[in-house]
Amino acid sequence: MTPGNRRPVVIASNRGPLTFRLDDDGNPTPTRGAGGLVSGLLPLVTGTDTLWIAAAIGDADRRAATEGVIEAEGVRARLLDIDPDDFRAAYDVIGNATLWFVHHGLFDVSRRPRIDRRWRAAWSAYQRVNDAFAEAVAESAPVDAILLVQDYHLALLGPRLVALRPDLTAVHFSHTPFAGPDLLHALPRDIRVELLEGLAGHHACGFHTARWARAFRHACDEDGVAAPATFVAPLGPDPADLAASAASPACTAALGRLDETTGDRQVVVRVDRLELSKNIVRGFLAFDTLLDEHPEHRGRVVFAASVYPSREGLPEYLAYRQEVEATVRRVNERWGVPGWQPIVLDLSDDYLASVAALRAYDVLLVNPVRDGMNLVAKEGPLLNERDGVLLLSTEAGAADELASAASMIDPCDLGGTAEALHEALTLGRAERTRRAGELRRLVAARGPAEWLADQLAAAR
Amino acid sequence: MTPGNRRPVVIASNRGPLTFRLDDDGNPTPTRGAGGLVSGLLPLVTGTDTLWIAAAIGDADRRAATEGVIEAEGVRARLLDIDPDDFRAAYDVIGNATLWFVHHGLFDVSRRPRIDRRWRAAWSAYQRVNDAFAEAVAESAPVDAILLVQDYHLALLGPRLVALRPDLTAVHFSHTPFAGPDLLHALPRDIRVELLEGLAGHHACGFHTARWARAFRHACDEDGVAAPATFVAPLGPDPADLAASAASPACTAALGRLDETTGDRQVVVRVDRLELSKNIVRGFLAFDTLLDEHPEHRGRVVFAASVYPSREGLPEYLAYRQEVEATVRRVNERWGVPGWQPIVLDLSDDYLASVAALRAYDVLLVNPVRDGMNLVAKEGPLLNERDGVLLLSTEAGAADELASAASMIDPCDLGGTAEALHEALTLGRAERTRRAGELRRLVAARGPAEWLADQLAAAR
Repeated sequence: MTPGNRRPVVIASNRGPLTFRLDDDGNPTPTRGAGGLVSGLLPLVTGTDTLWIAAAIGDADRRAATEGVIEAEGVRARLLDIDPDDFRAAYDVIGNATLWFVHHGLFDVSRRPRIDRRWRAAWSAYQRVNDAFAEAVAESAPVDAILLVQDYHLALLGPRLVALRPDLTAVHFSHTPFAGPDLLHALPRDIRVELLEGLAGHHACGFHTARWARAFRHACDEDGVAAPATFVAPLGPDPADLAASAASPACTAALGRLDETTGDRQVVVRVDRLELSKNIVRGFLAFDTLLDEHPEHRGRVVFAASVYPSREGLPEYLAYRQEVEATVRRVNERWGVPGWQPIVLDLSDDYLASVAALRAYDVLLVNPVRDGMNLVAKEGPLLNERDGVLLLSTEAGAADELASAASMIDPCDLGGTAEALHEALTLGRAERTRRAGELRRLVAARGPAEWLADQLAAAR
Repeated sequence: MTPGNRRPVVIASNRGPLTFRLDDDGNPTPTRGAGGLVSGLLPLVTGTDTLWIAAAIGDADRRAATEGVIEAEGVRARLLDIDPDDFRAAYDVIGNATLWFVHHGLFDVSRRPRIDRRWRAAWSAYQRVNDAFAEAVAESAPVDAILLVQDYHLALLGPRLVALRPDLTAVHFSHTPFAGPDLLHALPRDIRVELLEGLAGHHACGFHTARWARAFRHACDEDGVAAPATFVAPLGPDPADLAASAASPACTAALGRLDETTGDRQVVVRVDRLELSKNIVRGFLAFDTLLDEHPEHRGRVVFAASVYPSREGLPEYLAYRQEVEATVRRVNERWGVPGWQPIVLDLSDDYLASVAALRAYDVLLVNPVRDGMNLVAKEGPLLNERDGVLLLSTEAGAADELASAASMIDPCDLGGTAEALHEALTLGRAERTRRAGELRRLVAARGPAEWLADQLAAAR
């Protein structure tokens, strides 16, 4: 699938390249999957003999799972019909509510996590999900294949394959940050060691930045686990894919609506999942500080925030959504006047509207408290049509590549972020153009193909 | 002050060896100070020419500060009259609400900290407090002295002395854990670097365990700060001091009252400040799990918890106190019957009553989420008269020395803690005796004198 690689390739990930719905006759009908990982990899594996193994999510997927390896839409996929209770416990309790939290440092540790009987049962389910993937890989992978294991849902896969299929070379890639010893110690030692040994049971472990790789090695050291080889392979967006979205009539229509709202004012944009790690509240508070300390921006700038709710089954996310909405109300009540609403909050999950916002920003605010990579920080400069300025958190993986052309901000620093907003809004045309060009150059240097090639190289 | 050390010694700490009150004539009258650090060091410096420089806390202290170096109660002290607003901002906002939180990993990072204008002003005050100490040390320290700087209140002292007094050798000791890179990144980069360079500007930096020293070095590496020499010097309690407290009539009276409450039941004890890092709520939830899963303990065990409120000016501590009290109510309502109250919560700050509780425990629960050392884990075995079992968090510094004779628990693991409680309550007499003896031996191996000697050795 990549020049120089002659070994067959298998991908294992939680979500797959195909999702199914039942047609009028009750037969499962495939469509191509979505999401950062899937949309990045799909063009690269389409038309190849790469096999992609993923979990069946809904009922139609489960029906499709009975068919074994499916060839459709140019990809070869196998979906696994995992026990729904196991899948839910592994995905919700372990994946979303534990591993996501621990790697992003989101636990309020004096209160959470609580490792209780229910949690231990969910961990057993997580083990069984990894078992099911291991069995499917063992059954379906060609001889001598390279297995590319994606993300924290499948951290225990490697060691389960060693006995079953010693001919395979399994490489793991973490799309999240990795918890160093301080954060990982929120988990009990037996779980930490199982997790680290699970990752260490791969031929190599990849991360978006050297910092997450260091955190992983420190965590291994602290618990006496022998770390495997690590490698750094930053993922970038697919420019062609973005260009196609930007060129769509629906995107242009959305851009028209945004222009109507903002008029001739400057536009600060953010595009994020409504996610605790994205630091949305502090972003609005920094904007509030900007309006307080630099009155010249009052009435002259609109903060267009696209934040689409997710994981609302977790009370932490519902609470955070309420804080986000309350903060927006307070800032708008404090500064708004007839004809000018300082913050325009868009909670709809409208991908093309968010692409339109990225085309139109004067300033893009990307201020996560911790983020594996943050693709918005890379998509923005590729899409933007105004030579906008990127404000980028030092705690995003993307900081490693983009620091020289972005305005770097410390995510907890409200005053510093407000000053960076002011500087970005008043930056001269020549410097904006220079930086935007440099950002485009940096981002264009690496797309999904380079990222994939790095994983295959790590298998050698 | 210690064999082999011929250089004069100066100690700098926030709280000092003497505190003053105004007598009937309005003159400041000294009494010996209290608290872990002070009570450990006081016997060692009494009668020596060691000079101890500390902040004046109240009005009487401030009056005494005008007198320069004071000799009283066998110690030589100088108190600094720091601007009250500066002192409060440095102590409350930076010390208690920021550095304590960051080193103990207590920030709920999606919400706190918020580095705003008020915080930056407090940081300036913190710098000025460190300036004031530097000037006082420069004025008062004998030629060629060793300066022992204590704790996070004075992290910036070393570099301020280099130009003023190049003849001094300054050693810093951290009584807290140290935040590795993941935790330290809650602070903006300029502050992190100033803090790390402040510590690195000492001849050597000491910690209670190798783990905190590693975290410090990793934090330095991550921000490109050249780390100084580090050393590990665990502090232990003074056995003579404890024995004197235990022998006091007030302690024996408190023991009598405790015995009346518990009768012939087994006794689980905890003694802590009501502090977020001490993990008090999860301790009660683990006890609840014990009663749920091992019904044989119902009515047969009392959890006597001495947790004295502190820092109630911080909303986080008030909220946590409410959670502690609510949890105790729920557990007592769930399991209590006439004649048996499962948890007896003592919120009074009665030192001798807590010494009595340590004399009487069958099981001592020490389960912090993160703790520099935890002296209770060492005082308990020295005081205990029942060959009680120590349940000790892996995240306390004391774990390094005591793991071989304690029951180690993961602080977030409710089920594991409940099982450890069950095993401790049912442990055979011979094994209890063996472990208690081993704990006494381990604890007795190091007191304040050894800890002090290590700091002086680090200055060579």
